[in-house]
Amino acid sequence: MNALKEKILKEGSVIGTEIIKVDQFLNHRIDVKFLEEIGEEFHKRFAEERITKILTVEASGIAIAVIAAKYFDYVPVVFAKKAVPSTMTGGSYTAEARSFTKGTVSMFRVSREALSPEDRVLILDDFLASGEAGFALAEIVKAAGAAVCGIGSVIEKEYQGGSRRLREAGYRVESLAVIKGIENGTIVW
Amino acid sequence: MNALKEKILKEGSVIGTEIIKVDQFLNHRIDVKFLEEIGEEFHKRFAEERITKILTVEASGIAIAVIAAKYFDYVPVVFAKKAVPSTMTGGSYTAEARSFTKGTVSMFRVSREALSPEDRVLILDDFLASGEAGFALAEIVKAAGAAVCGIGSVIEKEYQGGSRRLREAGYRVESLAVIKGIENGTIVW
Repeated sequence: MNALKEKILKEGSVIGTEIIKVDQFLNHRIDVKFLEEIGEEFHKRFAEERITKILTVEASGIAIAVIAAKYFDYVPVVFAKKAVPSTMTGGSYTAEARSFTKGTVSMFRVSREALSPEDRVLILDDFLASGEAGFALAEIVKAAGAAVCGIGSVIEKEYQGGSRRLREAGYRVESLAVIKGIENGTIVW
Repeated sequence: MNALKEKILKEGSVIGTEIIKVDQFLNHRIDVKFLEEIGEEFHKRFAEERITKILTVEASGIAIAVIAAKYFDYVPVVFAKKAVPSTMTGGSYTAEARSFTKGTVSMFRVSREALSPEDRVLILDDFLASGEAGFALAEIVKAAGAAVCGIGSVIEKEYQGGSRRLREAGYRVESLAVIKGIENGTIVW
């Protein structure tokens, strides 16, 4: 998606040898008009999958998922929580995931009421790095007896191997911008 | 907002004597079509404020803020973070807030690059309870030299006193559904 690559080059920046900062439009300050282009593109790629639900994880995935939902005929969005809220009373599905940028391990948690075995789920997130979040969300979908119909990321850091591992596990993965590596502070597509 | 009250009664539930559970449409599973009605209503109430930015806090506020942004001519959304991400490199504004439902204290954090002194900011969140989050976000806006033009909540728990305190401090507060109390497990409007 060329508009996205241009946006990353224009408004993003590289930190060290691994991290892409897109705080200006994607995961702190959010450009909602641009997210609509992203949502539309996800729909183009997964239109034939008859998606019934979009699953993401708090916090940065939420904006992407809710804007994308409009293009999927307003299917419900569910976001996995990383803490146990006092309102999650009816039992939950859980799965563990490491966060590369934060250096932490989180327990993803989705209420049992939020997924059903008939669901055809699209998993969306801002970044695809090591694939840990994708695997954890997919595990939750499968625990509910539902189908993982695709995993979409806005920005893939291919050099961290997540997309390869997810594809080897049989998942369909679509990333709107694929970064092959960072060389001398510059992004290599 | 009558449609919201009906939605709370139909899809929400009461836990104990204090907590309203709206996991089915607002802060875990998200009904995006319904959020559009909410966004439109916020715009009706704050249309004349010439808002240039919407500020919220992760995680539940994000969906509300990004959907509302469309009705405010796609102004940028900024969400305060509760942890220090590795990408927040340019300095930040911070303020402390307690969470009633989680029983925790969080440090809200907004990058200095995300707010400017010219901004006319609308603060949005899912719940208004004790007002702690509202005060913390307002403090951040003022630290940036910007103007707090309004504080909007989807559901206000009036009995926790936050709206009174915020209004006494001079802020304009608009809540789309106001809960006066919970009596014998039933919501009193």
